[in-house]
Amino acid sequence: MSGIKAFAPATVGNIGVGFDIMGMALERPGDEVVARKSDTKGLRITKITGHQGRLPYEVEKNTAGVAVLQLLEHLGETDLGIELDIHKKMPFGSGLGSSAASAVAAVLAVSELLRTGMSKRELLPFACAGEQMATGSFITDNVAPSLLGGIVLIRDGESYDIHRLHVPRGLYVAVAYPHIEILTKSARALLKSDVSMAQYVRQSANVGGFIVGLFNGDIDLIGRSLKDEIIEPQRAGLIPGFYDVKDAALAEGALGCSISGAGPSVFALCANSLVAENAGRAMKQAFAKHGVESELFLSPVNQEGARIC
Amino acid sequence: MSGIKAFAPATVGNIGVGFDIMGMALERPGDEVVARKSDTKGLRITKITGHQGRLPYEVEKNTAGVAVLQLLEHLGETDLGIELDIHKKMPFGSGLGSSAASAVAAVLAVSELLRTGMSKRELLPFACAGEQMATGSFITDNVAPSLLGGIVLIRDGESYDIHRLHVPRGLYVAVAYPHIEILTKSARALLKSDVSMAQYVRQSANVGGFIVGLFNGDIDLIGRSLKDEIIEPQRAGLIPGFYDVKDAALAEGALGCSISGAGPSVFALCANSLVAENAGRAMKQAFAKHGVESELFLSPVNQEGARIC
Repeated sequence: MSGIKAFAPATVGNIGVGFDIMGMALERPGDEVVARKSDTKGLRITKITGHQGRLPYEVEKNTAGVAVLQLLEHLGETDLGIELDIHKKMPFGSGLGSSAASAVAAVLAVSELLRTGMSKRELLPFACAGEQMATGSFITDNVAPSLLGGIVLIRDGESYDIHRLHVPRGLYVAVAYPHIEILTKSARALLKSDVSMAQYVRQSANVGGFIVGLFNGDIDLIGRSLKDEIIEPQRAGLIPGFYDVKDAALAEGALGCSISGAGPSVFALCANSLVAENAGRAMKQAFAKHGVESELFLSPVNQEGARIC
Repeated sequence: MSGIKAFAPATVGNIGVGFDIMGMALERPGDEVVARKSDTKGLRITKITGHQGRLPYEVEKNTAGVAVLQLLEHLGETDLGIELDIHKKMPFGSGLGSSAASAVAAVLAVSELLRTGMSKRELLPFACAGEQMATGSFITDNVAPSLLGGIVLIRDGESYDIHRLHVPRGLYVAVAYPHIEILTKSARALLKSDVSMAQYVRQSANVGGFIVGLFNGDIDLIGRSLKDEIIEPQRAGLIPGFYDVKDAALAEGALGCSISGAGPSVFALCANSLVAENAGRAMKQAFAKHGVESELFLSPVNQEGARIC
């Protein structure tokens, strides 16, 4: 049987300035999921490509599987025969929201397959269910932008109080993914439990400045505000050569440069594609000088989010 | 000689959610300053009304005097004979930016008197000079909104990286000023030097939500975001009956209610004037139940800021 194919994009969690409260969708890379009906009762994952044997086929242990299961329960359709093919087309463990993208694509594909008529907003809680199983929390800074597109603010993940921000035309992102592994758990574990009042004031001022810059199309303000003096210094040591990579991007005119999600990918937000190309090349070279191989992704901000293709 | 009269409005510093980074101008109350030329060389403060003998006539010790002195130095006009009459029409020590208002009005009046042609943005550093003398810091969350009007974000006070936010139509403020005294210094001294990471994340999410709510005209989002779980709990004890006053305002439908600046005034932001009237009355009654007399101010958000009148 033919199926429905959905694409869900990679995302940059935190965007430097907005730890646990912001995320941004890219045009590429991203994951694809094909959903089709089957005569065999129940949900099955029938194929996973591009995962080097690292993802579980058991529905209950796979973030995409868990997400679709919750959607089917909500619909009262757990008896339906549905097959999922998951095509991983982005690196996982990269800090680019790989597991979120698979869950988002799977939920969107199944929703379309079953002609639920549900909006993306209505699908959000189900797409998040997989991540919640994996991380035990309501941190949706990858799921929400992958599904909805654009740059999102998560005021409260638990109540899905999530808002798309205005994105000025032309914004482009260079992402360098160094071939090292960081577990999100370890990246979280090393964070201090407190921040100083002065840091808190400056960082909240930058959160505000970043959002005002987006709404007003004030590119310079976006650049001045894209700073993270709380999380980045604590995690930089996990990424060999991080500060050289960052300096290289800024020297090429990037608006800001920081760690994507829990890393190890490093992103640079740029005013246009030309700057992003130059910044990306410089970042890759800087990693190379530290003996680290890296993969480069260049992409505009994805305004559409996940889509049927 | 006749002079130039300027009005500068009271302001609500912090606006609950934005400690040290946000401020909001009111239509009333406010201070008036008259500036006129004189044949006697130099700057003099010739009259101060409404201050119950508490403000200094010495130019160098008066925030309005210091602000104008800096402007005259910048203009190379220190030899000019100028007289200032300062009419305090708002309570000081109230947390409503009284000293900022006097400095703003004085600078604007003198700039107009001398036909400098300077914009409000250009006058900002001089208006801030008085507060810097008084507080020793670049905290401009009263000066900036009093001069520029509206709701402002101070991304960085030292570089005057200050931005007016969009203000939805109809927003109204009720302020209850209880007749007790809090020194800003003491209110600052009692603040803890750290905040927890979890509090920081939630508070920065609320800063973001508040700004997005303003730009999108999303009144409910403004209400959900107008929360301060960092500063307010630490200062609430300085204001007898604070939580009853707050509950009273919220019960009347206020979007949010918190301490104005370092207090003791308590403000409630409301979707319209009717809610503000009801909330204000309830706040005053709640203070009265705690044996505290209070003065009530009802005002729309002031979009214009300081003005020549």
